[in-house]
Amino acid sequence: MNNFNNIRNQPIGVFDSGIGGLTVLAEIERLMPGENIIYFGDTARVPYGNKTSATVKKFSVENVLFLLEERVKMVVVACNTSSALALDYLNNIFRIPIIGVIESGVNKALAVTSGKIGIIGTKATIESRAYQRNIAKKNKKIKIFSKSCPLFVPLVEEGLVNGEITKKTIQMYLESFKKKKIDTIILGCTHYPLLKEEIAKYLQKVNIVDSAQEVASHAKDVLGHFKLISGKKAKGNNKFCISDEPKNFTNFAKLFLKRNIPEPKIVNV
Amino acid sequence: MNNFNNIRNQPIGVFDSGIGGLTVLAEIERLMPGENIIYFGDTARVPYGNKTSATVKKFSVENVLFLLEERVKMVVVACNTSSALALDYLNNIFRIPIIGVIESGVNKALAVTSGKIGIIGTKATIESRAYQRNIAKKNKKIKIFSKSCPLFVPLVEEGLVNGEITKKTIQMYLESFKKKKIDTIILGCTHYPLLKEEIAKYLQKVNIVDSAQEVASHAKDVLGHFKLISGKKAKGNNKFCISDEPKNFTNFAKLFLKRNIPEPKIVNV
Repeated sequence: MNNFNNIRNQPIGVFDSGIGGLTVLAEIERLMPGENIIYFGDTARVPYGNKTSATVKKFSVENVLFLLEERVKMVVVACNTSSALALDYLNNIFRIPIIGVIESGVNKALAVTSGKIGIIGTKATIESRAYQRNIAKKNKKIKIFSKSCPLFVPLVEEGLVNGEITKKTIQMYLESFKKKKIDTIILGCTHYPLLKEEIAKYLQKVNIVDSAQEVASHAKDVLGHFKLISGKKAKGNNKFCISDEPKNFTNFAKLFLKRNIPEPKIVNV
Repeated sequence: MNNFNNIRNQPIGVFDSGIGGLTVLAEIERLMPGENIIYFGDTARVPYGNKTSATVKKFSVENVLFLLEERVKMVVVACNTSSALALDYLNNIFRIPIIGVIESGVNKALAVTSGKIGIIGTKATIESRAYQRNIAKKNKKIKIFSKSCPLFVPLVEEGLVNGEITKKTIQMYLESFKKKKIDTIILGCTHYPLLKEEIAKYLQKVNIVDSAQEVASHAKDVLGHFKLISGKKAKGNNKFCISDEPKNFTNFAKLFLKRNIPEPKIVNV
């Protein structure tokens, strides 16, 4: 029954702790318009950023199990916290390819840096040292600086992507990066691309690595490698599932995707 | 077996979605030093403020069931979101007295106001209109203004209880209250007492109603009414239970209680 043509036309699964992963969905869509995508946002248990490794692992396994029921051919972990704390664990458990935002972001950063990389993310992502370890494993000479920025997500979710409070907060968090003269910054959280412009204005002349773009391109490589890219010519469709509350989700989706989306389905993982 | 003396010496249960409810625990302790208190912070599922009513009800029931296993004699719902969305539901299900922060805050505000009350809280608390309805039910003549302030909790949790970003954020949220010349403001979130000083500086000459103080005094009245105040002379003890992550909890506890607490127990609700 299950021949390769069938598998090829199965959807790509994307999960995030909430809404931020929509920046990843948007990039996959742009790069592989023929693919069907199922997005799961764990809005009932968001955020993952302040939870322990054990809890994030448990939630991540449940999210993958849900996507498997939807017969996905691969899983993209759009959540940085989950990529940092649970990706290896997931790959030890499940057979289908599962990729995360961290390695993709690191590879891009290493390709463009001249030696000083700054990493920003949630407390859990930064404290996990997943980005730092991944960089050090590949190039011991790189100078790495990191900073958790817990106010960036609520600022974005308040729609404050510019203005004085946002500028001051960016300055508070990134002043040390400026002093250290980093040349490349990794946006280690899917919300942060919405602050890209203000971060660029403040830091000036740095390479900004947007993990959402990089993981989408990595997903394409992986599907190509396994000959699993959809054969369909027509535009793929999207399905949105969340674990709680449709109202805010559709508002945020508009902010992140710059278009209206169909009513998401509420599911219990 | 279960005579009144036994019940009297059982603990008071306090639950919150996370750490903010520690401001309530501190007030109960101050007012009734002989009582044993069990605090449950649902840190694995925090925050409740952006979740639906159905989800908040489900979580709240699970929290009460956990406290009942600990044989509490009453439950104080320290979480504003849960008080707003789930209190009536809980009182329809459970036999022991369960009180929340909303009614206590409203009664105090009505006692001191000269007619214009402002309410601040999370999105869910404000959108539930629980404070607004409670005030209107008791006095139709009061002019009510409300504003959700989603950045206040992350600011407090970043330790930013003063400074420029905090001042600007307070101004952004409370400018309309200043223009409307409110005379009383209800801090409808357990984190907000830590911003009390800056809010007072900005609004000037308003009555600030701190729900944590008011609910503690309400708890004392209820226990007195049922003759359930502890007969013990010695200082009561506290037990702290959370659903995830001890590290941040003890740090925050220090910020909220201004003392060190014993290592919290991690429980699965």
